[in-house]
Amino acid sequence: MLRNDERTYDELRKVKITKNYTKHADGSVLIEAGNTKIICTAMIEEKIPVFLKGQKKGWITSEYRMLPSSTVTRKIRDSSKGKIDGRNMEIQRLIGRTLRSIIDLKKLGERTLWVDCDVIQADGGTRTASITGAFIAIMDAVKKLKDKGLISEIPIDHFVAAVSVGVVNGQALLDLCYEEDSNAEIDMNVVMTEKGEYIEIQGTGEARPMNKEEFNKLLALSEKGIMELIEVQKRVLSD
Amino acid sequence: MLRNDERTYDELRKVKITKNYTKHADGSVLIEAGNTKIICTAMIEEKIPVFLKGQKKGWITSEYRMLPSSTVTRKIRDSSKGKIDGRNMEIQRLIGRTLRSIIDLKKLGERTLWVDCDVIQADGGTRTASITGAFIAIMDAVKKLKDKGLISEIPIDHFVAAVSVGVVNGQALLDLCYEEDSNAEIDMNVVMTEKGEYIEIQGTGEARPMNKEEFNKLLALSEKGIMELIEVQKRVLSD
Amino acid sequence: MLRNDERTYDELRKVKITKNYTKHADGSVLIEAGNTKIICTAMIEEKIPVFLKGQKKGWITSEYRMLPSSTVTRKIRDSSKGKIDGRNMEIQRLIGRTLRSIIDLKKLGERTLWVDCDVIQADGGTRTASITGAFIAIMDAVKKLKDKGLISEIPIDHFVAAVSVGVVNGQALLDLCYEEDSNAEIDMNVVMTEKGEYIEIQGTGEARPMNKEEFNKLLALSEKGIMELIEVQKRVLSD
Amino acid sequence: MLRNDERTYDELRKVKITKNYTKHADGSVLIEAGNTKIICTAMIEEKIPVFLKGQKKGWITSEYRMLPSSTVTRKIRDSSKGKIDGRNMEIQRLIGRTLRSIIDLKKLGERTLWVDCDVIQADGGTRTASITGAFIAIMDAVKKLKDKGLISEIPIDHFVAAVSVGVVNGQALLDLCYEEDSNAEIDMNVVMTEKGEYIEIQGTGEARPMNKEEFNKLLALSEKGIMELIEVQKRVLSD
Amino acid sequence: MLRNDERTYDELRKVKITKNYTKHADGSVLIEAGNTKIICTAMIEEKIPVFLKGQKKGWITSEYRMLPSSTVTRKIRDSSKGKIDGRNMEIQRLIGRTLRSIIDLKKLGERTLWVDCDVIQADGGTRTASITGAFIAIMDAVKKLKDKGLISEIPIDHFVAAVSVGVVNGQALLDLCYEEDSNAEIDMNVVMTEKGEYIEIQGTGEARPMNKEEFNKLLALSEKGIMELIEVQKRVLSD
Amino acid sequence: MLRNDERTYDELRKVKITKNYTKHADGSVLIEAGNTKIICTAMIEEKIPVFLKGQKKGWITSEYRMLPSSTVTRKIRDSSKGKIDGRNMEIQRLIGRTLRSIIDLKKLGERTLWVDCDVIQADGGTRTASITGAFIAIMDAVKKLKDKGLISEIPIDHFVAAVSVGVVNGQALLDLCYEEDSNAEIDMNVVMTEKGEYIEIQGTGEARPMNKEEFNKLLALSEKGIMELIEVQKRVLSD
Repeated sequence: MLRNDERTYDELRKVKITKNYTKHADGSVLIEAGNTKIICTAMIEEKIPVFLKGQKKGWITSEYRMLPSSTVTRKIRDSSKGKIDGRNMEIQRLIGRTLRSIIDLKKLGERTLWVDCDVIQADGGTRTASITGAFIAIMDAVKKLKDKGLISEIPIDHFVAAVSVGVVNGQALLDLCYEEDSNAEIDMNVVMTEKGEYIEIQGTGEARPMNKEEFNKLLALSEKGIMELIEVQKRVLSD
Repeated sequence: MLRNDERTYDELRKVKITKNYTKHADGSVLIEAGNTKIICTAMIEEKIPVFLKGQKKGWITSEYRMLPSSTVTRKIRDSSKGKIDGRNMEIQRLIGRTLRSIIDLKKLGERTLWVDCDVIQADGGTRTASITGAFIAIMDAVKKLKDKGLISEIPIDHFVAAVSVGVVNGQALLDLCYEEDSNAEIDMNVVMTEKGEYIEIQGTGEARPMNKEEFNKLLALSEKGIMELIEVQKRVLSD
Repeated sequence: MLRNDERTYDELRKVKITKNYTKHADGSVLIEAGNTKIICTAMIEEKIPVFLKGQKKGWITSEYRMLPSSTVTRKIRDSSKGKIDGRNMEIQRLIGRTLRSIIDLKKLGERTLWVDCDVIQADGGTRTASITGAFIAIMDAVKKLKDKGLISEIPIDHFVAAVSVGVVNGQALLDLCYEEDSNAEIDMNVVMTEKGEYIEIQGTGEARPMNKEEFNKLLALSEKGIMELIEVQKRVLSD
Repeated sequence: MLRNDERTYDELRKVKITKNYTKHADGSVLIEAGNTKIICTAMIEEKIPVFLKGQKKGWITSEYRMLPSSTVTRKIRDSSKGKIDGRNMEIQRLIGRTLRSIIDLKKLGERTLWVDCDVIQADGGTRTASITGAFIAIMDAVKKLKDKGLISEIPIDHFVAAVSVGVVNGQALLDLCYEEDSNAEIDMNVVMTEKGEYIEIQGTGEARPMNKEEFNKLLALSEKGIMELIEVQKRVLSD
Repeated sequence: MLRNDERTYDELRKVKITKNYTKHADGSVLIEAGNTKIICTAMIEEKIPVFLKGQKKGWITSEYRMLPSSTVTRKIRDSSKGKIDGRNMEIQRLIGRTLRSIIDLKKLGERTLWVDCDVIQADGGTRTASITGAFIAIMDAVKKLKDKGLISEIPIDHFVAAVSVGVVNGQALLDLCYEEDSNAEIDMNVVMTEKGEYIEIQGTGEARPMNKEEFNKLLALSEKGIMELIEVQKRVLSD
Repeated sequence: MLRNDERTYDELRKVKITKNYTKHADGSVLIEAGNTKIICTAMIEEKIPVFLKGQKKGWITSEYRMLPSSTVTRKIRDSSKGKIDGRNMEIQRLIGRTLRSIIDLKKLGERTLWVDCDVIQADGGTRTASITGAFIAIMDAVKKLKDKGLISEIPIDHFVAAVSVGVVNGQALLDLCYEEDSNAEIDMNVVMTEKGEYIEIQGTGEARPMNKEEFNKLLALSEKGIMELIEVQKRVLSD
């Protein structure tokens, strides 16, 4: 049975990653996954946060926001509400944690990589697409550091990408769009390296608990999707 | 090989749940898991949030905080910093999501259950102990509603508890204390029902990605721990 | 004498306006003026602010922000600083005032037009390009209202656009890029209708006061630029 | 005539002070005065605030909060409201002022004592019980300093305790519980040393002004109560 | 022995109260007590706060602030710091409590009196001068209500004024100026009615505890001062 | 045709500038323009903001606020709302920009001039009167620096003043009072030096665009008014 957008249950949406999307950031990417569009940028600052003083290593920090017009109903800005939305906070913590886990902060040296993921159009899967896109942005940024001779080797060992999976009407699906996501009984976000190892698994029984069989089916689907996403990343980076 | 506190790898810390810990809340519990101590309370408000108007159902919302003196180094209050800490936000969202998934909000009726988890002493596993304790607090609160004739049946179908597991120095361990947690390579929090179904799985490769074997070992450990915790909950509630 | 980017003193940067840039807003535009790139959107909400209750008219409100990666040095988000930047506030007040002055709020009916201008790449002239782009976004939004039969006529009578002018090294220049702007002795932003009437004039002697001759020269330059911008707007809207 | 809880007009509620209530703070106390229960902790930080730089002395600062579930109607957290409640502010200023007045900040040395009073159950008299309990917490903390050889003598000269008194239905009463307090015509909080000298007197005519006779009667009652509280403190410290 | 400004120990500073100081407020006073200068205003709003709905009575609320230039070292505005200063909060609570205790809120009717005390020059005693001045401002405001026929009688029964007293170098003094206040060992603010009854007594041992003899001496001094201030108030109101 | 207050179209309101209005600021002025009354002060701080470190020059910064009682309907304080009002922000940016443009910051030396404009009574033209008054305050402050030998010459070259003009019922008017301002079709604020050169021009078509003829008429009116204001400033400073 095909989905609304004609995809099969284990089919990713069309992914497109445009590098050098804006000119001031050290790495800058527009990632499109179906109708989800996110600007992911990485900027290098030759400074480290106070809590790292003297440790001879760098830092990666991340912020995630949605433009007010990115959603069907206008989303009020955090700055207008006067506080940061819990969901934004949760997502940017996930992105930062993921990126810190794949970069060698010693090799990065005493500098900070600021990663910003700004959703300009949302249609589900924004947190996972942010990770997939941010990976390319930081790769471009660290290459720039290497080209300038500021670091001697690329401090990133393996590719990483992320995807959402879920159960909708009893059917396990890969890469949920917004409509599917809002009807999902079970919802899972998976971040994985090219070696098929997990960086992060976040599974939630939204409407009901999930059993082990469902859980394993979803994990398998996510792995299939992530491997395809990493193919896209490799193609983009080799251009 | 025994752990610092003489436990085996698959042994829970001593758990103690004191009901009716304070007198104003509708459900009020002190949960102690080893040196971790948390006050979990549930208070009923005969009101619903605006976004539920007209839907004839209730709501559960949760807040999680740590007392400044609960940690080794004094933790600055969110109110003194002027903004809510990202970790607090993330944890209270997890608690709320978990509790909402096991309660029938229609049967709860048009009222709000406010759940507060205040850590008075932290030694690892505060988010999972909060869930295990909060479950008892809301059970007490809904029983009170039933005793008063405000609802006709208990709107909760199954028990739920949570535990942390992780890999420390290559060894999978159940129920990490703070020292273990801060040395963990891999860290996972699992929320599960008495039927062995998952409400939430959050696994993170802190220091390195995790492979599937490790992942499955951790899941098995967590299930063992949660089943024991649910035994404790059942004993406490039947008193 | 030519400028850095080979323009003559009275030459606009290349302007490109892409309509329907994102899919959820009622009007959505990417405006590019040289290297300045801004997403301008208009979203209709069927509601009015409290202070307009009973006046049988609508409202337009505007927000302006820059993405952190839009500038050479990363710009901290207002939401991370915990307060709205004075410059953002000033600019969004200008945009809102401008748009309110050209729309007939009675004819708009009891609804609010939310206009968001998000700079994704900054190279000078962002406030004026925001106005030029936002005009197209609100035109698209009110057309949608008319197409749905919610209003009987387009409540906007004339085109409006804006441009910056300034004196750099003693030379009056049209449409300053960032480098010119930061060296400008005198700086002026002009908002004008297609009839050559002023909506807003903001002239500032940054480094020294300006005399009347300079002032008049700048006004003439700005008029030339705005008339060309309105040509672009007309072309875009007739597509 | 006996009061609701069978006390005579000049009788304190049962007071219980549990030392070493939590393990991370340098001094940690649970004080119970009737149904009022407060965790008072003292934590030493080897640092002083900027305004004391170079003065070769220490500092004591205090924070007072109520858990949401400590009151009959759930009390919204300051961090959720986004600002510190005026009453909390007023009380923590009183606690800090009191403690600073009895400690020799020169002898404390260049360090800060952080005192936190967190009400876990409120039934009147929380600000005065906070002072009585915090005294024990700071005594324990400075003893720890002395035991470690960081200071050569205990920098506290005399005991201090506090109690509330008031006029309810024309009757002067010692140590008001919440119900009495909310019906009090006159309300007074007194902080006194073991020598019977005043650290702070705050008397308020809530419903009507108070005359001198009433005032003196209340002062006498408060002295009786405070002397008994200091007996309790001495007993607890000598254990 | 005379004080710096040639006063005897029991002498008030020169007090001047200018009525109708600004034109928009319903009551508006400039009170000068020596070099302390405060604008006290009362504005009537025909509305009550939500928590009084249905109680058929009014409300008084108060705000106290200092202009940045009112102090020797520029005082940062609360709005620039992003939070209300603890001292401002404490003082405005005192002013509000005092004024509420002398007005019959039933007779005031369902309206709010907004009292603002803005210190334009500070030289000690600003909180007590605020009360003395605010009394005149609210008298003028309620007279205006009576003149318009909105209330049938003045809802205020007795005059109220306030003064500071303290012990400086062992000497009890009336009405401390800033220099005296910053050297005071003991500090007390007293609010009293014309009948010699207390509305509020706040005594603090700043540098050391105070004994009963000192306390009584200070109370007597404050009564002398307040009776003189009430004479000034009566004269001003009868003009 | 005369205006409500009997002025002709090109007549300023009566202006009065009182120097040394309060005693702690280095320059302190009460400026009255008709019923508009503003306290403008300048305070010197021997410190510079971080971003100027090492540039061997000073800074001027400005804050503008209105007392709650300064307007017909009580104006809520920014500190009570928890954020700075957009209009206040815009005005204080204008004042700061103006003052920085007429002072030689190198000659001022490494210090900050804090300028505060606090409106105590508003009747239109508060931003322009703030500038006219603040000029005198900073002149007094820099004279004090010169008198103390801290600077060798007055770092201000020419006088500056500001005025509002506008079109009301088709008639161009000088120095609008509040009632005129709220009915103005076109509104302009002009800041000019004694040489007739512009520091800032801000013209807004409030109700409709303005044509060039109107614009020039308003500019001429503003120049007449400013020259008269500078006469007043010169008289005041020569006293």
